[in-house]
Amino acid sequence: MNGGEQTILFNNKPRVLAGYSIVGPKEAMGPLDPYFHKRLRKDDFGQKSYEKAECKLHMSAISGAIIAAGLTPKDIDVNIGGDLLNQIITSSFSARELDIPFVGMYTACSTFGQALIAGAALIDGGYVYRAACSTSSHFSTAERQYRYPLELGTQMTPTSQWTVTGAGCTILGKEGGKIYAESATIGKVVDFGIADANNMGAAMAPAAAKTVAQHLKDTGRSADHYDCIVTGDLGVYGSRLFLELLESEGIKVAGNHKDCGEMIFDKKQRCPQGGSGAGASSVVFNSYFLHQMRSGSIKRLLLVPTGALLSKLSSLQGETIPGIANAISFAVEE
Amino acid sequence: MNGGEQTILFNNKPRVLAGYSIVGPKEAMGPLDPYFHKRLRKDDFGQKSYEKAECKLHMSAISGAIIAAGLTPKDIDVNIGGDLLNQIITSSFSARELDIPFVGMYTACSTFGQALIAGAALIDGGYVYRAACSTSSHFSTAERQYRYPLELGTQMTPTSQWTVTGAGCTILGKEGGKIYAESATIGKVVDFGIADANNMGAAMAPAAAKTVAQHLKDTGRSADHYDCIVTGDLGVYGSRLFLELLESEGIKVAGNHKDCGEMIFDKKQRCPQGGSGAGASSVVFNSYFLHQMRSGSIKRLLLVPTGALLSKLSSLQGETIPGIANAISFAVEE
Repeated sequence: MNGGEQTILFNNKPRVLAGYSIVGPKEAMGPLDPYFHKRLRKDDFGQKSYEKAECKLHMSAISGAIIAAGLTPKDIDVNIGGDLLNQIITSSFSARELDIPFVGMYTACSTFGQALIAGAALIDGGYVYRAACSTSSHFSTAERQYRYPLELGTQMTPTSQWTVTGAGCTILGKEGGKIYAESATIGKVVDFGIADANNMGAAMAPAAAKTVAQHLKDTGRSADHYDCIVTGDLGVYGSRLFLELLESEGIKVAGNHKDCGEMIFDKKQRCPQGGSGAGASSVVFNSYFLHQMRSGSIKRLLLVPTGALLSKLSSLQGETIPGIANAISFAVEE
Repeated sequence: MNGGEQTILFNNKPRVLAGYSIVGPKEAMGPLDPYFHKRLRKDDFGQKSYEKAECKLHMSAISGAIIAAGLTPKDIDVNIGGDLLNQIITSSFSARELDIPFVGMYTACSTFGQALIAGAALIDGGYVYRAACSTSSHFSTAERQYRYPLELGTQMTPTSQWTVTGAGCTILGKEGGKIYAESATIGKVVDFGIADANNMGAAMAPAAAKTVAQHLKDTGRSADHYDCIVTGDLGVYGSRLFLELLESEGIKVAGNHKDCGEMIFDKKQRCPQGGSGAGASSVVFNSYFLHQMRSGSIKRLLLVPTGALLSKLSSLQGETIPGIANAISFAVEE
């Protein structure tokens, strides 16, 4: 690659034109509430099924971001999107309403990173002028697809994370604004042998550590080059593992690390490991972190959405859960 | 976009270094058998489950293509892959074995087009040197995931297509060989209101017609610019609908149109509509069509993989089936 073994460099500073986040009621009760753009009062969003609700959520994030950028759908060349549902129906059914060319992506909760990387590369290379990069997840659609019917009222294990109900969208463009994407590291699929579908943090932490280590090696940077290294949804336990794995390679990140999954819920909200889902990094980046970059308190940020690669069937067939993490760095122009 | 409303132009001629195709026993009894690179004697490929068999199939296609290009996995910067299984476990579990950065994609059977477009853009823009673009499908994994247990012996309806058991991979690179990608049209999601999950051809044909019409408009070409316009898996009935829809817009394609799904099986093979699946366009392009381009009998080809966007759940919830089609054009250097 043009920036090392796994890293690509963007030479033309593709810009972040706007970000938008929309979340469910539980997320709106968490500590990041002041930063979100829209909050639902009920997580069915007035729809007949949770899947339709997630679809409306996804579409609202894209529309919201386009409006926030002062644009109309006609100004967007491509929507690059993904979600956790089988056959990513949320993203593709949203795209059906939008009349924008659609690219569907899937690497679980790492999809948001992948979408941003693809969008930034297409703009940086001069192929498209503006891209809407969007992901979503929904607690109720994910629970019943991956685990059990909600009506069972299944208890969470101590390592379980709570799937975030939310959707986020970033509009990238050739010009406009002072925040730009400057490099990206595409992750490899890493299998640590974790087979517990209720312990995603442990499954994803090795991939996150590997991607961050490779990113620093490829760019010749130390971890403190970044004001903040932001993982997607490792949760409390996964974040600790991530930091320990990096430390074992001589890389100290602790002081400038944040995890979107860990940040989104308060300890009182009865999900001690924090949140997860393709919407987690997407709503937190598009609200809190873009705000911090705009206000100048973060100037260099490495976003590392993390994904656990499994299906209900793969778990039933006794497969372990490989992880993947994609990194993309943003900077604020001085 | 740099080539019109939905079209991107590749200015640096990203090359096709090699293609590889591996198919199941039924596909090997079809008319394209002489062109395939490897044929399975049994479609379980010696594995304990059909999912593991599909995974081995996918991995074999990538390895086969890398070897055919005279390379090793270390020479490949990125694997861009997808398949039809929930959470694209085939592609991501293959990537786990390969130690190559992985980008996961999903737009159903149109995924192969999307993967080629992403690979070509990443190379053309100077970000990566070589990309392995791969997709697969497997009759037995698809049937039991989307429809019924195989043991039921469910009859096919007259419009049903037979999911192709096969995987294909194309190695794209900055230099080498005389076949190159020259433009691509990213599809929009089009919903014609078809709700019959056994009539994919009708669901996809409008998207294919729309993408081809837009491609010709964006490039200012007439359909006969291409020696062959190749759709992915419309099948017999879908192909007819595709040609009629184009004709109603004043575009005549009939003489130079082929459909991978229609080509792969013989009429005697008891699947009168032909094949479908993310492996269909992938095995046919990487075998027959690359051979025709290398031998000089096709000099300009437009490949249009077509996808039907549905999940088992979306059908049960009464959703219609939107379609998408992505087009990428290849030319042979004089």
